[in-house]
Amino acid sequence: MDISHASSLSKADALALRYGEDSIPAAGPWSDAIALMLSHRSIRGYRPDALPEGTLETLISAAQSAATSSNLQTWSVVAVTDPGKKAQIAKLSAGQKQIEQCPLFLAWIADVSRNERMSVEEGVTLEVLPFLETYLVAAIDAALAAQNAVTAAESLGLSTVYIGAMRNNSTQIAELLGLPQGAMGVFGMCVGYAAPDTANEVKPRLPQDAILYRETYGNPNESALRKAYDAKMAAFSKRNDMTQDTWTSRVIGRMSKVAALGGRDKLVSALHAMGFPLK
Amino acid sequence: MDISHASSLSKADALALRYGEDSIPAAGPWSDAIALMLSHRSIRGYRPDALPEGTLETLISAAQSAATSSNLQTWSVVAVTDPGKKAQIAKLSAGQKQIEQCPLFLAWIADVSRNERMSVEEGVTLEVLPFLETYLVAAIDAALAAQNAVTAAESLGLSTVYIGAMRNNSTQIAELLGLPQGAMGVFGMCVGYAAPDTANEVKPRLPQDAILYRETYGNPNESALRKAYDAKMAAFSKRNDMTQDTWTSRVIGRMSKVAALGGRDKLVSALHAMGFPLK
Repeated sequence: MDISHASSLSKADALALRYGEDSIPAAGPWSDAIALMLSHRSIRGYRPDALPEGTLETLISAAQSAATSSNLQTWSVVAVTDPGKKAQIAKLSAGQKQIEQCPLFLAWIADVSRNERMSVEEGVTLEVLPFLETYLVAAIDAALAAQNAVTAAESLGLSTVYIGAMRNNSTQIAELLGLPQGAMGVFGMCVGYAAPDTANEVKPRLPQDAILYRETYGNPNESALRKAYDAKMAAFSKRNDMTQDTWTSRVIGRMSKVAALGGRDKLVSALHAMGFPLK
Repeated sequence: MDISHASSLSKADALALRYGEDSIPAAGPWSDAIALMLSHRSIRGYRPDALPEGTLETLISAAQSAATSSNLQTWSVVAVTDPGKKAQIAKLSAGQKQIEQCPLFLAWIADVSRNERMSVEEGVTLEVLPFLETYLVAAIDAALAAQNAVTAAESLGLSTVYIGAMRNNSTQIAELLGLPQGAMGVFGMCVGYAAPDTANEVKPRLPQDAILYRETYGNPNESALRKAYDAKMAAFSKRNDMTQDTWTSRVIGRMSKVAALGGRDKLVSALHAMGFPLK
């Protein structure tokens, strides 16, 4: 077992890195697994080194161990290692270079097609297939599985990053991966060893008071909490040579213009074309 | 640190429990965190015992450490411990008794309203808010966060179960929790100590060959793989006194009739009412 950097972090250090010294939550019980998760960073630069044999199977065994709604298992994963195919995926996903760099790219698929193939063999109609609910379950279950794969990878000293831009051109990704109707690449994931020059400081999050509520939603101090977090993110950005400085400016940059969706504003029609009527 | 039962499982045993002796994947590197995830069971019966102080904050620190698309953090959580409120949530969620039993119920919220409140204060319009893509990001990010909370809880010897039925009456749940427009309870989660008489055998999953593909989607042996898994699930159901016997019959039971959605067939109109136009 190698939990690398994680095991070296105390609870106090892990919480200070994630929230800043002035916003440490009153956390109680602790474990090595929790320390590992607290140390998470998304890594956007990879060494070309191959993964140890059986790593993919290990990660998927963790992924399949996550809960899945009613055991329906409406997700799949396509593991891509072929450099040509990774380059094509990168091209369709905002040109993100880490997709080409990483030795293993996982395309996580919201997939109701397997269940549908079963129903065809059994001569039964699955009435729930066309509903938004069914797509949502598939996407959520893919996410639960993928997050277990992230924790598993990091427990082995590997790094990961989610690729939401794999939805920029969903129908072309589906064609490239040979997906049937009722299957859609919901996000990608790079897996590999972080390049030595990659920024990897733990990113601060909003204080718990801004996202965790008791019994009823809301916190009257939200605006002040955001402004304190903005200052923290400005300092973080400066230390890590990022262009956006505060959380507020980051969110505005990503959410104020439809163009920032990179094509994902057409997700509804793309899903219709892939066999999800979203009824 | 307490990883309880998990640490006692060898790699071979963990994989055999999850896949059956005849379908053990060729997994490679291994870690305690991976063993912990492999040992996951969803638990549907809880002791009333309260959690150690600070457990909630610990779980949420793990949850917030999960990746979040562009650091938008479009999710929240409402922690419910009030017995009356838990009873109301249970009533709206198919009467699932574990919601009343567990000492801590977490309502995971897909939440773009915080970002919207920020934009109003800043005098900016967030054009991406009405899009399905934005809702999907919020739901996925809530799922990534929640799955970290599950792993954290299990590392502390606690048990969990996701409550998808919290979507059966989404608008009433929103009202009960005081959610603003742009916030929606995407699923619930019970956290607590498993009752001693609760079935807790690790549930077998589809073999990896049925869900993991290399370079391109598909496996010509899918039908045979499913039938072998059906036999495994029939034996599992028998050992655990469940009524549905095979995976095939379980899927048909859950997916063949719209009535099985328990009201979630109206999710589109419910989301419209909660401020998600799903454009």
